[in-house]
Amino acid sequence: MKEKGILVVVSGFSGSGKGTIMKQLLEEHPSTYALSISATTRIPRPGECHGKEYFFVSREEFEQMIHKKALIEYAQYVDNYYGTPKDYVVEKLEQGKDVILEIEIQGALKVKKAYPDTLLLFVSPPSAQELKNRLINRGTEEEAVIASRLSRAWQEAQGIEQYDYFVINDDLEECVQEVHSIIQNEHARAARNCELIETIRAELKSFAKGE
Amino acid sequence: MKEKGILVVVSGFSGSGKGTIMKQLLEEHPSTYALSISATTRIPRPGECHGKEYFFVSREEFEQMIHKKALIEYAQYVDNYYGTPKDYVVEKLEQGKDVILEIEIQGALKVKKAYPDTLLLFVSPPSAQELKNRLINRGTEEEAVIASRLSRAWQEAQGIEQYDYFVINDDLEECVQEVHSIIQNEHARAARNCELIETIRAELKSFAKGE
Repeated sequence: MKEKGILVVVSGFSGSGKGTIMKQLLEEHPSTYALSISATTRIPRPGECHGKEYFFVSREEFEQMIHKKALIEYAQYVDNYYGTPKDYVVEKLEQGKDVILEIEIQGALKVKKAYPDTLLLFVSPPSAQELKNRLINRGTEEEAVIASRLSRAWQEAQGIEQYDYFVINDDLEECVQEVHSIIQNEHARAARNCELIETIRAELKSFAKGE
Repeated sequence: MKEKGILVVVSGFSGSGKGTIMKQLLEEHPSTYALSISATTRIPRPGECHGKEYFFVSREEFEQMIHKKALIEYAQYVDNYYGTPKDYVVEKLEQGKDVILEIEIQGALKVKKAYPDTLLLFVSPPSAQELKNRLINRGTEEEAVIASRLSRAWQEAQGIEQYDYFVINDDLEECVQEVHSIIQNEHARAARNCELIETIRAELKSFAKGE
C-alpha cells in the first residue's frame, strides 16, 4: 500500500522567494509533490488559465463551496474570495503525493487547526534588511508599496512561532534542497508510523512467545 | 555566535544496526557531532579504554556523581551502574556540536523529560522478521539468547510512539544519510529559532515605521 502524502503549508514574507522555491521543488520532484490550486472569484489576468494558476469561479459558486464545506480554508481580500478546494487536496494525498499549499499565515493556522498533522514551513530571507533590499532591487515597486509590504511582513511575523520550521532562503538551490529534505524526513515521524510500529510490535510479541 | 548544538538520543533494537550508523555518522561528520561517553562501574573488557568506550569509575565515584546531580540519566543493570555525565555533554553543546547519546528507551524518556528539546530517534530494521534474521545470521548467539533479545525488543517497543522519529535501517548508507539530515533539519525548527525570529521581527517593525 502506498503511504499517504503529507499536507504541507508554505508561507513566507513577500520577497522571501517562496514562489520560486515551490516552482523548483515541483520541477525537480514532479512525482513526489502536488501543488494545491486555489479557487478565487477574481478575474483572470492575461495568461492565467483556469485549473493552472487558479480555479476561477463566480461568487455564487464560491459561496456554494463554503456552504458545502468544500474548502479547507478561505479568506476574503478586498472584494474577492480565495480558498483551497478540499477534493483536489484529499485526492492527491490519497495518491501518496505530498501536497503543498502556498498560503499566508492566517490561512495556514486555520489549516493546522483543522488538520493537526499539517506541516507548516515559513520561508524567510536571512534578515529584514535583506528583505528590504530584495524589494528595492526589484525596481518595480514604489517606495510606498515597499513600506506597505514591510509593514505587512511585520504583521505576518506575529505567528511564526506556531510554524514547525523556519527556513532561511539565502541560497536558492540549498533552500530547495532543505525544504525537500524537511518534507521527506517528516515521513519518518514516529507519530506518522503508528501502524508500522504496531505491526512490528505484534510480530515481536509472537516471536518472543516462541510462536 | 555559533549556534548551540542539539541533544540527540538514538535508541534501537539490538540488531537494528544503530551502533554502526552512529560510528559512520561520526566518521563522516567529525566536526558536526560528538558522541556522549557513558560512565560505568563495570570492569573494562580487553581493549576498552577509559574515556573512549566508557569512563570507568568506582562505585563510590559513581554514587558521588549521582549525589552531585552530575549525570543526565543513569540506570543500574545487574550489579553495575551506567550513566551519562552532564559536563561533557553541556561542553560539547556549547561548542555547537550536536551531541549523540546512544541509550535505551527508559533512559531516553528520562532525558526527554529533563531536557524537552532533546531529539529522540528510534532505529528499527524494516520488520521483526528481519530483526530475527539478523540476530540468527550473526551466528554467535544461542537460540535462548536470540529469544531473550526478541523478548527484550518487544518490551522496548512499548515506548516508541514517544520518540520523534522512527527510522528504518534497510540500507546502511541511506540510513546514515537520513539520520544526518533529520538532525541537521532540526536546527531549522521554528521553536529553536525564537531569537532570530524576534530579531527579524524587531527590524521589520522599525522599517515599517520608516525608522
